Amino acid sequence: MKKLLFTPGPLTTSRTVKEAMLEDMGSRDHAFVNAVKETRNELLKLALVSQAEGYECVIVQGSGTFAVESVVSSVIGRNDVLLVLANGAYGERIVKMATIHQINHHVLRFDEDKIVTPESVDDFLKMHPEITHVAGIHSETTTGLFNPVTEIGAVCKKHDKVFIVDAMSSFGGVRMNMKEMNISFLVSSSNKCIEGVPGFAFAICKKKELEKAKGQARSLSLDLYDQWKGLEANGQFRFTPPTLSLMAFRQALRELDAEGGIEAREKRYKANKKNLDEGMAALGFKQYLDPQIQGHIITSFLYPTDTSFNFEEFYQKLNSRGFIIYPGKLSKADAFRIGNIGQIFPADVVNLVNAVKEVLEEQFDPA
Amino acid sequence: MKKLLFTPGPLTTSRTVKEAMLEDMGSRDHAFVNAVKETRNELLKLALVSQAEGYECVIVQGSGTFAVESVVSSVIGRNDVLLVLANGAYGERIVKMATIHQINHHVLRFDEDKIVTPESVDDFLKMHPEITHVAGIHSETTTGLFNPVTEIGAVCKKHDKVFIVDAMSSFGGVRMNMKEMNISFLVSSSNKCIEGVPGFAFAICKKKELEKAKGQARSLSLDLYDQWKGLEANGQFRFTPPTLSLMAFRQALRELDAEGGIEAREKRYKANKKNLDEGMAALGFKQYLDPQIQGHIITSFLYPTDTSFNFEEFYQKLNSRGFIIYPGKLSKADAFRIGNIGQIFPADVVNLVNAVKEVLEEQFDPA
Repeated sequence: MKKLLFTPGPLTTSRTVKEAMLEDMGSRDHAFVNAVKETRNELLKLALVSQAEGYECVIVQGSGTFAVESVVSSVIGRNDVLLVLANGAYGERIVKMATIHQINHHVLRFDEDKIVTPESVDDFLKMHPEITHVAGIHSETTTGLFNPVTEIGAVCKKHDKVFIVDAMSSFGGVRMNMKEMNISFLVSSSNKCIEGVPGFAFAICKKKELEKAKGQARSLSLDLYDQWKGLEANGQFRFTPPTLSLMAFRQALRELDAEGGIEAREKRYKANKKNLDEGMAALGFKQYLDPQIQGHIITSFLYPTDTSFNFEEFYQKLNSRGFIIYPGKLSKADAFRIGNIGQIFPADVVNLVNAVKEVLEEQFDPA
Repeated sequence: MKKLLFTPGPLTTSRTVKEAMLEDMGSRDHAFVNAVKETRNELLKLALVSQAEGYECVIVQGSGTFAVESVVSSVIGRNDVLLVLANGAYGERIVKMATIHQINHHVLRFDEDKIVTPESVDDFLKMHPEITHVAGIHSETTTGLFNPVTEIGAVCKKHDKVFIVDAMSSFGGVRMNMKEMNISFLVSSSNKCIEGVPGFAFAICKKKELEKAKGQARSLSLDLYDQWKGLEANGQFRFTPPTLSLMAFRQALRELDAEGGIEAREKRYKANKKNLDEGMAALGFKQYLDPQIQGHIITSFLYPTDTSFNFEEFYQKLNSRGFIIYPGKLSKADAFRIGNIGQIFPADVVNLVNAVKEVLEEQFDPA
């Protein structure tokens, strides 16, 4: 049975994206090198920047975390100081990286159900002029909230700080202009809103800042500068890339364009979200977040208050109907998550909600 | 046109291996978790060890280098001392990792056309009792030579050293018994002799040594111990895995078994190698290595002495006939490389040699 994934990724992808993986590719062959070049250029365009404006795209093998760590452990020097903005698991993950790599850092923490406020970032930067870099999360997948990166970017600009944004689960599904938002490093991955398959991630980088990373990386595999220089030298990766994931991604980029670009995709995801919100509310589900700060990528739903609710059973019964949802990750509440991204359409969301209704009826009122 | 890859990987894979990627998989879904479990168990079997005997398989996202770095940067402690055995680019790559991670290390170097001799390792270990770990390469893809890992393993055993082997391009194409060979960490990747697609690598580990890596990794993404513990806890990856590459790999493992296991595959690769050796010799090509130390994975051929030989043109003309070969990587001689691994068969090698003949005739005697 073909299953639909309502997760934060890996996502449901189109048949044609997967079929782009049916031809073996030599990693040093011209056909592949050209596909990589096209992909890097397209990614710059999606961030509304260009090489001419001083931006570069670096692809990193592995998951999104690998690319975030590549940025954090390469671009922040021994004498630099990082401020991490954390209101969920992904912010805390950057704190962990900073700790492991012995990077000087501060953490400005917020509750999981609160956004990072630009005012508090402003205050913190005033009190800590030693800070050189600020890292934050756009769409915090832990809960589904959107942090106000545009406003935080403006604060970083005011204080002249290098702004690093983990836009893992949102890039491609939300219009973002790196330059306007004052983002120097934007990280996302192949299996999110661009709707490719997993295997790699990427960082879109302000060249001037990327160049400062020369010789200061804290690992070989995750050396962002060397990875960039390798790609620039001959278009090839330093180490074997996931060739077929890259071919799938190039196809996904073409399909994003055919759909009408990020604007059209954002519209579809929001339509998914609307059907999800309305359908789940009608079934009595409460959302964890205040709608004001909830993004349109993924939503956390609280477990029904009826104590007979069993998530594992709920999950399995939806799964057997062809719908894969996602467990929760909140530290203080029981919840599950449902994503709106990937090759899923408003009608699919209606079908999911109907399946949820059926499963609830079985679970609470077994025949 | 379907092209055949005569490279050290990514390789030609079967249609059915690639088709295993046509279904989207949730990374936390049971179907995927079970596939990962099956894969980890099968890999132990291929190394002729088991969990019961104290071995564990850890899968690491990224290229083979990522997994080698994961081992090197996780298992060698602050007070440990590494000896790197180097006779090519892959040995030197481990030296680079040790340097970046500030690991205490020695390097025992040999010329690229010489094997690492067990006697010299024995002598070196006698002189340097502070050494705790020894790292070497099995099939040095730079040239194609096989280092005598069985004999070096015996020396490591005699001196009670932890032996780390990069068997990237050979594992699955050569019978290896980790226990007999006294290997504590064996690293290989998805896109080599098991004939999967690229996207991840793996380390087969002696559990007793793996456990010592707790809390001493030098990065988050490449923390071998945490990666293992994550997989053990709930069968899931800490960070998004290349789901579809893993599904392809499980299919590849099943096809390896159907072929008759490593023994049958080794026989096929050797038959490929025999046809390659004979065919290229008949065309006047000289090999870089002494046949005594040449492995059956990949072969370096010296450029013809005729100065009109143009590798780029040679490569392109073979490419346009559907054959992808590999550039050289020797530091002191001009050579190109031809691999015998992947879904290529003795008849394919005959076809390749015929194409080489045609291209040479065109190149040296243009109409």
